Amino acid sequence: MGDHYLHKSVTDTAKRIKLLEIQGARNVAIAAIQAIEEASKESKAKTKTTFIKELSEAKNVLFNSRETEPLMRNSIRYIIYNVESSPSQSTEELASEVSRVSGMFIQKLEMTKEKIAEIGSKRIFHHARVLTHCHSSTVTNMLRKAKLEEKTFEVVCTESRPVFQGRLTAKEMLDFGIKTTMIVDSAVRNFMNDIDLVVVGADAITSEGNIVNKIGTSMVALAAKEARTPFYVVSELLKFDPETVQGGYERIEERSQKEVWPDYPPGLIIRNPAFDVTRREFIHGIICEEGIISPHSISELMHRKYPLIFESAQF
Amino acid sequence: MGDHYLHKSVTDTAKRIKLLEIQGARNVAIAAIQAIEEASKESKAKTKTTFIKELSEAKNVLFNSRETEPLMRNSIRYIIYNVESSPSQSTEELASEVSRVSGMFIQKLEMTKEKIAEIGSKRIFHHARVLTHCHSSTVTNMLRKAKLEEKTFEVVCTESRPVFQGRLTAKEMLDFGIKTTMIVDSAVRNFMNDIDLVVVGADAITSEGNIVNKIGTSMVALAAKEARTPFYVVSELLKFDPETVQGGYERIEERSQKEVWPDYPPGLIIRNPAFDVTRREFIHGIICEEGIISPHSISELMHRKYPLIFESAQF
Amino acid sequence: MGDHYLHKSVTDTAKRIKLLEIQGARNVAIAAIQAIEEASKESKAKTKTTFIKELSEAKNVLFNSRETEPLMRNSIRYIIYNVESSPSQSTEELASEVSRVSGMFIQKLEMTKEKIAEIGSKRIFHHARVLTHCHSSTVTNMLRKAKLEEKTFEVVCTESRPVFQGRLTAKEMLDFGIKTTMIVDSAVRNFMNDIDLVVVGADAITSEGNIVNKIGTSMVALAAKEARTPFYVVSELLKFDPETVQGGYERIEERSQKEVWPDYPPGLIIRNPAFDVTRREFIHGIICEEGIISPHSISELMHRKYPLIFESAQF
Amino acid sequence: MGDHYLHKSVTDTAKRIKLLEIQGARNVAIAAIQAIEEASKESKAKTKTTFIKELSEAKNVLFNSRETEPLMRNSIRYIIYNVESSPSQSTEELASEVSRVSGMFIQKLEMTKEKIAEIGSKRIFHHARVLTHCHSSTVTNMLRKAKLEEKTFEVVCTESRPVFQGRLTAKEMLDFGIKTTMIVDSAVRNFMNDIDLVVVGADAITSEGNIVNKIGTSMVALAAKEARTPFYVVSELLKFDPETVQGGYERIEERSQKEVWPDYPPGLIIRNPAFDVTRREFIHGIICEEGIISPHSISELMHRKYPLIFESAQF
Amino acid sequence: MGDHYLHKSVTDTAKRIKLLEIQGARNVAIAAIQAIEEASKESKAKTKTTFIKELSEAKNVLFNSRETEPLMRNSIRYIIYNVESSPSQSTEELASEVSRVSGMFIQKLEMTKEKIAEIGSKRIFHHARVLTHCHSSTVTNMLRKAKLEEKTFEVVCTESRPVFQGRLTAKEMLDFGIKTTMIVDSAVRNFMNDIDLVVVGADAITSEGNIVNKIGTSMVALAAKEARTPFYVVSELLKFDPETVQGGYERIEERSQKEVWPDYPPGLIIRNPAFDVTRREFIHGIICEEGIISPHSISELMHRKYPLIFESAQF
Amino acid sequence: MGDHYLHKSVTDTAKRIKLLEIQGARNVAIAAIQAIEEASKESKAKTKTTFIKELSEAKNVLFNSRETEPLMRNSIRYIIYNVESSPSQSTEELASEVSRVSGMFIQKLEMTKEKIAEIGSKRIFHHARVLTHCHSSTVTNMLRKAKLEEKTFEVVCTESRPVFQGRLTAKEMLDFGIKTTMIVDSAVRNFMNDIDLVVVGADAITSEGNIVNKIGTSMVALAAKEARTPFYVVSELLKFDPETVQGGYERIEERSQKEVWPDYPPGLIIRNPAFDVTRREFIHGIICEEGIISPHSISELMHRKYPLIFESAQF
Repeated sequence: MGDHYLHKSVTDTAKRIKLLEIQGARNVAIAAIQAIEEASKESKAKTKTTFIKELSEAKNVLFNSRETEPLMRNSIRYIIYNVESSPSQSTEELASEVSRVSGMFIQKLEMTKEKIAEIGSKRIFHHARVLTHCHSSTVTNMLRKAKLEEKTFEVVCTESRPVFQGRLTAKEMLDFGIKTTMIVDSAVRNFMNDIDLVVVGADAITSEGNIVNKIGTSMVALAAKEARTPFYVVSELLKFDPETVQGGYERIEERSQKEVWPDYPPGLIIRNPAFDVTRREFIHGIICEEGIISPHSISELMHRKYPLIFESAQF
Repeated sequence: MGDHYLHKSVTDTAKRIKLLEIQGARNVAIAAIQAIEEASKESKAKTKTTFIKELSEAKNVLFNSRETEPLMRNSIRYIIYNVESSPSQSTEELASEVSRVSGMFIQKLEMTKEKIAEIGSKRIFHHARVLTHCHSSTVTNMLRKAKLEEKTFEVVCTESRPVFQGRLTAKEMLDFGIKTTMIVDSAVRNFMNDIDLVVVGADAITSEGNIVNKIGTSMVALAAKEARTPFYVVSELLKFDPETVQGGYERIEERSQKEVWPDYPPGLIIRNPAFDVTRREFIHGIICEEGIISPHSISELMHRKYPLIFESAQF
Repeated sequence: MGDHYLHKSVTDTAKRIKLLEIQGARNVAIAAIQAIEEASKESKAKTKTTFIKELSEAKNVLFNSRETEPLMRNSIRYIIYNVESSPSQSTEELASEVSRVSGMFIQKLEMTKEKIAEIGSKRIFHHARVLTHCHSSTVTNMLRKAKLEEKTFEVVCTESRPVFQGRLTAKEMLDFGIKTTMIVDSAVRNFMNDIDLVVVGADAITSEGNIVNKIGTSMVALAAKEARTPFYVVSELLKFDPETVQGGYERIEERSQKEVWPDYPPGLIIRNPAFDVTRREFIHGIICEEGIISPHSISELMHRKYPLIFESAQF
Repeated sequence: MGDHYLHKSVTDTAKRIKLLEIQGARNVAIAAIQAIEEASKESKAKTKTTFIKELSEAKNVLFNSRETEPLMRNSIRYIIYNVESSPSQSTEELASEVSRVSGMFIQKLEMTKEKIAEIGSKRIFHHARVLTHCHSSTVTNMLRKAKLEEKTFEVVCTESRPVFQGRLTAKEMLDFGIKTTMIVDSAVRNFMNDIDLVVVGADAITSEGNIVNKIGTSMVALAAKEARTPFYVVSELLKFDPETVQGGYERIEERSQKEVWPDYPPGLIIRNPAFDVTRREFIHGIICEEGIISPHSISELMHRKYPLIFESAQF
Repeated sequence: MGDHYLHKSVTDTAKRIKLLEIQGARNVAIAAIQAIEEASKESKAKTKTTFIKELSEAKNVLFNSRETEPLMRNSIRYIIYNVESSPSQSTEELASEVSRVSGMFIQKLEMTKEKIAEIGSKRIFHHARVLTHCHSSTVTNMLRKAKLEEKTFEVVCTESRPVFQGRLTAKEMLDFGIKTTMIVDSAVRNFMNDIDLVVVGADAITSEGNIVNKIGTSMVALAAKEARTPFYVVSELLKFDPETVQGGYERIEERSQKEVWPDYPPGLIIRNPAFDVTRREFIHGIICEEGIISPHSISELMHRKYPLIFESAQF
Repeated sequence: MGDHYLHKSVTDTAKRIKLLEIQGARNVAIAAIQAIEEASKESKAKTKTTFIKELSEAKNVLFNSRETEPLMRNSIRYIIYNVESSPSQSTEELASEVSRVSGMFIQKLEMTKEKIAEIGSKRIFHHARVLTHCHSSTVTNMLRKAKLEEKTFEVVCTESRPVFQGRLTAKEMLDFGIKTTMIVDSAVRNFMNDIDLVVVGADAITSEGNIVNKIGTSMVALAAKEARTPFYVVSELLKFDPETVQGGYERIEERSQKEVWPDYPPGLIIRNPAFDVTRREFIHGIICEEGIISPHSISELMHRKYPLIFESAQF
């Protein structure tokens, strides 16, 4: 199958995701949904079969833009699943079905974010010292909510090498008027005894209840467990990766050596995995749109709440 | 007491230590010894009392150049102790006693380093994957020795934020012809299951058997313990800090915020401790000039081997 | 809204709960249900709206009688939910609906207790040494059942400071003819190696799968885990607190200082929390009316078994 | 009730199971199903009541052939449940219902095995060193699948005293062309640091999420946890034992002393339990026909997938 | 041998110790020394042999006044050892040797206490929250020293059932002007995350490096370890029990049931051990007159510092 | 240097050690000492130099008979050290010095064994359930002593694959009249909760305080730690291996594949290490001739008690 079926919005978006011009699980998902929607609006397909073939190609291109990105993948699977299940054969009607589902999905993502902030902010008690690692908009939105509720608390950010996303978190915190401290990543254990609560985001949730997040997260979790400090993951349920149900390992992107050492000496091997895996036994709870849950029952929760995800992952 | 007793070599050396122009526990100790020696050679003191007063002032200035630096402090204490115990009253004879003891001490440091390399290199078995953190000349000398013995092994270095001393380690390893990999500090746990042995240096050893080393060492140790990977400390015994016997906490130097983030935003607090403490239960053994020992018996070993240190620490 | 809507049975019951004249999650729940029933029987409300307003005020008063008491709260929520969902508009019919649901609920509580005793008593094997903390009628009923089945076993009770509820447990055990030993709370670890099984009750179960129970329970659990002794919680599922799903912390009642030291010296602070939290990883299983379950899946179980609880908690 | 209702195929099969002429959870289940089917085909019962009485007796005899064998028990319960629920009163029709359900069940077991192999083989990455204990056809089938996919990996087998089932595993592995190493059972910890993955089978799964498997499995799990080595259980969901939901302990068969020491000296006690229990916190995941799951939610999964099992266990 | 050799001061003191009229390891030791001294002053013995026989009987009587009390026992052993080693044969000279050694010993105990306070108070940093269990004059003296040094810190005391010695500690702390909080024993884990440092006394130190202290100490230590809170023991080295070197278990006194429940119901067994054992791996350091040491090397330290103790324990 | 210097008693003994005709650390040491003694008695050497050369060759041959055998090695080193230090030049006198030292050494070994039995038997309390692994004559002698003291206790033995030395232990226990149970090695964890005390022997003790003993010992230790069961090592101090001080790994003998599976299939790799390493943190104490000690201070104890060992290991 050639790429003549592919709309420019899809190829452009995929390229921008690859180059990290679009970043963050939520932003990537929204951009991909919008690309799909635009492409289907302007589709010239005559039959439902062709229409779906186009969608399917778009899906492949977008999926290939990142090693793994469950939120984006679940979004696209969901849209396509709805089109396929639609009784209609008219491509026009199918295109407007894509628009409807896309809009609904993006709105749902927004509501989810607010719901999570509402639930999670209740965990931020007065005078709490909260540590976070890297940058997660779901986390910072939740902390912002707590601040808006006039809670007094402080945040400790790691710098998050190699790309220093912790600086983004620190700036946001300062902008929200929250007392903020930054430390290097390897100082986490040194400060852990004075931390009341750790909150981190997630890039993916596996069927075993583990989470995939920025490299270093699992070391923060280990230090938290050692000091009996609660460790919470703040995440949309749709970051659940249905491929892990089928035995697939969550793939970990390995990024450029130059991120670590721009002018590294010849002969030196640099390993730069972007993420690591934090196992469920380190996680006190996942703060999600369904409330605060034990990660151990994530698969059953997904079957109850989003059963489609399991079916649509079979494509 | 004025500083007119102070020789320029002492004040200069103290300043260079403060500015980090002289670095590494061993280099600092040697420079301080040499300053003391030079000062005493050119002393104009007429009486033993004055001579010792001068030494004592030099000691204070040099001690104040770093928060804590047991190897340097033990060296100077040892020299002064010898002068005080000397039956001689002639300042000329006392100066040459300083020279004799200084020379002996520096030679001893050299022999110790080689002895440690000889012992420690036996722990580097064929095909071992060795992880180290930060830069320690005692560690790199030991790895060099193992390489010279034609062992095939590889080394994984952390970058060691904020000052990237891991890059120095990596370069030395490559120079020795050792296969070398670099990772960011927070990736240690991610690679730990594939590591056979961790070796790190030490800045100080406490009476409880804990070690003080570059920030992040205790997180490496925690990840090693979790994965049942042996964790060894390579250190001269004279890094034992006799002040900790008397209840004193090992003081942890807190360094400039700009090391972490040169243009940090106003309002942000940056905490930048240079060292952390790794407790004895994480340490399989200390590889020292006396062989491989359990850190739990360090105080008794020091009493057997260097009893003077306990007396001279009372000054 | 004034309290002129409030029936005396409600205000009286609330007062007696506050003064601990009514104690124990089950007794509190039953008294509250009966107060509601009596109030609605004698309601003078003319419209469904008024009738529900009265119920709602009664709910508030009863809820405020204790910091948290999920079994009572779930009971009342359940009754009100049924009234609201009723198609009827007649206040007479609604009052008899309250009676019907109340009766059913109380009967269900009784059946649940027997079901739990039947299931849990199977865990009490011959010659078992069982430790329990504080007093729980669900636990003692289960042990009584095991004794009635002619099992030979013995029970170790903690005294359960500050109010010595362990003495009540000890007396009940002796009355049942069970060999019984009492120890002070802090001796639990000393005896743990000789214990085969720990069973405790619960005041609340959180959405993460943790349980809230009498202060000291989490230390018993810690000592049990250290010695690899099974630790079971015996509880009705309706002690699940739906407010924790929404992020709320389980509130821990802090009781009078005089309970700890009647004539404490001026200036002394006494902290007297009545409960503590035992996290799910310490709990081998919850013995409930659904069988023996892992606490990690409690939320999914509640969604399957009592979905109404989640909806009615939104009020 | 006498055994005159019993068909020879049932008593013969039960005897062969008892004598271990039929072994392995799957083989035992299939043999029992076939015996039931044959017996019902040749039944001379005139009424549905008598027909069911015969089935019920056959069930008792087959259940008694092993202490516990959930897969076989669940199979028989399932068949009988279907017969009982059938609207038909004709014994002929009922017999053909038995045939239909039996065939479907056996076919399902086969499909399940292949599904598990497909999922689990994805966990066997290139150059993995996989340790297994005892012999499980579900495990060896999964490893065979991975080998057929041309993955390069090696297997370490324990010998599995006292009956040396590890030798069977080793032979199968060699037949599949897999590099294989054998060690004695007590050497597991010695080799664990070089193992990437442990996979074992299961004889039963309890409602708490624990698994029952060949004696020694829980020690392998303990050594795996200590070295942070992933530990997976490979099992059909129908090994879930619904009796454990109701509080029953999984019964552990104790086998002949002569298996351990054929000519043991008089006076010596030999304890020879065939199985042990591995608790859920040691298990990274159960690889089953539903995918890879956390054992903590097994009860909810069974309620979703095989609700009949809970009802039929009440018989 | 009859008790006609026994002086009244010895029998009286032994009785008062037994009745707890004299309490605390230090007070008991001093009273016993003084009794011995008085007895030997008024001895009517004519020969060294008789004199020593008298001392030996006094020793037996005093030793039997408590199950175990190493400080007292070591004191008496030390005095007798000196008498036996004395070249003198004159009973008058021996009596004055007893006086001399006794005086020296008591003076030494006083100096030790001050030395320990000096060392230990350095561990009490500004704003520290220090938890202690039961009452130890060595601990309270150390905290008093820290307060005299104008440090700001606060103390959390357990009540220490069954005899409430924590109340004594609380009163002393308040008298010293230290902010003080009291909790029940079983609430320790609940507050541990907010504690910076635990300090407890010791009744005995074993050759393995374990300590024996008031019942509940080992549970405090367990909760401290779980939360990574430093746990220090404050003790004179002469609480080392040389009998444990020879394999003897440290005997744990079991006290009256009425201490636990004055009017306990008939048939109830009450177990009331006065002490428990805290193993060395829970202890960060022993703060003693020699400084802060690892408990693991206690035997070697005693051989270096008090070699006589090993010889004199052979009597 | 040829082997014409070698006496037949030496080569014969070395051969019998190699073929396991002489077994057990103590028996091997005694045989080697006797061979050396016989050889030196019949030496034809004319000069001290030649005499020592002969001894040295004998040493090499005996050392090579086993991978490592510290007790034997320390014995021979000790004898040679004495000869070398002897002022005498007469080979006759030197030969009688060898006899004297040998006799003394063997006598000392015997006394040590009895001393250990005396100390260790105090740890066997009434009704204790003691587990041991493999066979150690030091352990069985200690248990025999406890039995002779009329203590009632029972012993659980592992079978100790692959050579079943546990059967020897079981027979000895039965002969002593001790109640004895045997289990397979992998069942240890299954029974650990009912064990009060584990005691094992040692083949070597390292400078870090670890012990080397029969394969499986470290798994027993792990299971003991998990269940908080005390784990003691019973060993002569002269099993300390001074080569480990100098960094050498304790070499682990790998024995014949046929021990594991006599007729193993072609292509199968069998790994059969005879020993494993149990780290000091698993060991409650070493029961040795010096009493019960913490393994962490073993090096300092050896320096105090057997300083010669460190010097003589330099040869």
